[in-house]
Amino acid sequence: MRIVVALGGNALLKRGEPMTAEVQRANVKIAAEALAPIANEHQLVISHGNGPQVGLLALQGAAYKPEEAYPLDVLGAETEGMIGYMIEQELGNLLPFEVPFATLLTMVEVDAGDPGFANPTKFVGPVYGKADADRIAAEKGWVFKQDGEKWRRVVASPVPKRIFEIRPIKWLLDHGTIVICAGGGGIPTMYEPGADRKLVGVEAVIDKDLCSELLARELDADLFVMLTDAEAVYIDWGKPTQKPIRRSSPAALAGIQFAAGSMGPKVEAACRFAAATGNLAAIGALKDLGRIIAGEAGTTVGPKGSTVYGS
Amino acid sequence: MRIVVALGGNALLKRGEPMTAEVQRANVKIAAEALAPIANEHQLVISHGNGPQVGLLALQGAAYKPEEAYPLDVLGAETEGMIGYMIEQELGNLLPFEVPFATLLTMVEVDAGDPGFANPTKFVGPVYGKADADRIAAEKGWVFKQDGEKWRRVVASPVPKRIFEIRPIKWLLDHGTIVICAGGGGIPTMYEPGADRKLVGVEAVIDKDLCSELLARELDADLFVMLTDAEAVYIDWGKPTQKPIRRSSPAALAGIQFAAGSMGPKVEAACRFAAATGNLAAIGALKDLGRIIAGEAGTTVGPKGSTVYGS
Repeated sequence: MRIVVALGGNALLKRGEPMTAEVQRANVKIAAEALAPIANEHQLVISHGNGPQVGLLALQGAAYKPEEAYPLDVLGAETEGMIGYMIEQELGNLLPFEVPFATLLTMVEVDAGDPGFANPTKFVGPVYGKADADRIAAEKGWVFKQDGEKWRRVVASPVPKRIFEIRPIKWLLDHGTIVICAGGGGIPTMYEPGADRKLVGVEAVIDKDLCSELLARELDADLFVMLTDAEAVYIDWGKPTQKPIRRSSPAALAGIQFAAGSMGPKVEAACRFAAATGNLAAIGALKDLGRIIAGEAGTTVGPKGSTVYGS
Repeated sequence: MRIVVALGGNALLKRGEPMTAEVQRANVKIAAEALAPIANEHQLVISHGNGPQVGLLALQGAAYKPEEAYPLDVLGAETEGMIGYMIEQELGNLLPFEVPFATLLTMVEVDAGDPGFANPTKFVGPVYGKADADRIAAEKGWVFKQDGEKWRRVVASPVPKRIFEIRPIKWLLDHGTIVICAGGGGIPTMYEPGADRKLVGVEAVIDKDLCSELLARELDADLFVMLTDAEAVYIDWGKPTQKPIRRSSPAALAGIQFAAGSMGPKVEAACRFAAATGNLAAIGALKDLGRIIAGEAGTTVGPKGSTVYGS
């Protein structure tokens, strides 16, 4: 099988942990141990989140020379290098030397007319007091929103339309390469209006799960797995009636609201993939990866069928 | 022809320029304009330097949380992402949409017994006063050397032995992809001693020209071009007898001393490549790239022949 696995941010850095290279590497090693048996059996493509890492680079830049802060497309490219490297090295240490690896920088096109740009909602970078936030907003044109007691920059999270490097990714897979790509939802880019249609970076953050879904769909993956903290998708999360969903379909899930920042995009991505390809998508915990692929754990979304709950 | 072009650090950032994303992008654009006509005619592989960029990331990290500074292998991976992205995007804007691109993260093996580790000489990161340097040296085991009035960290510059991603690079070239790889001399890695031979990152900096030579040799490139500030290699540089070398060979160049930090490694890399492959290597200025490839500018090193000087 060709399997696309999207590693959640928590696979790289758990909430509250210090963002050192050592901590990230230790987490990547745990992820690699879950991925290695899959790589031995299947064609494997790995994508990953980058939220905390982009945040760290933004903090470092602001601490050094805030007036020379790097834009989010460049920070995204940096994190694709950093995280991809750690995954490639740690997974490589668990597999035979002969297995080829490639970590590919991935640019993703978004639409300049995406409605996300009119109402940015994604928090990025450091928190500021009101006065500093107002000053920076005036200087740089950034949008700020209140985040608890403080203010924080918000950017758009536009829908991914195209992965520019999709052909090289396919060619490498055809040669048996384990490909790491589309990190952090890909580097956000768009075509400037005008006759020359120049591609430029965008100050935005693309949802990692929606981008991984586009990747899995374009690669015609047999299975698309999103790994996260939770062992499954739940209905009535946090209520006495809470139940895990074992199997479902886009039609059966339509109309159910899941948490916007976490499970919502995953369920949306799973439904899109199942509906578009007729293949299976799955959501579950890293530790259960083998059992998720076997259909014994997590939530599986197929093209058709009613919802089956666990207990 | 299959051509490997190594972009010098000055192609990305000129001495004294502020290290903003805008300045780097403007420089990358100039490089892309020189590369685009070559890409239209030949199979192109692009490598690049990363010295100032690694320095910047080290400064940013030190300004934020110096105790959590990232090691040089991770910073190198970040710069491969950042610089590769800018090159891919700017060059892509000058070529037909159909031309495939891939920026590949590149890990390079060095030997744990490399003599460079016994006498580190490569300056990296911020400068410190003596007291701070002594404290950090004791805390982290870093080696410091005096740099003018201040103290600065030095690391080894070991010889590159193996490019792990060489097969994916070849496969992509066979599909007509423009490949950007081996940035900054590659991410330095080595096998830990012991039975399990685990690959780990190394706190070192691999010379970009020597790594690009290894890349060009392994790819069996028809031509290996190193771009720099100078229009050619000169003998008696800075003296009244100064003369540019137009053509030469490893035998004819043997015994001539060139500047250790700049032209020395380039001449060494050119000689290695010409001797090992029987093909041509060249050294010259970015603006002359087309004429260098035509043999009309720069210094060309072939496997045999005596030295021909220009005026």
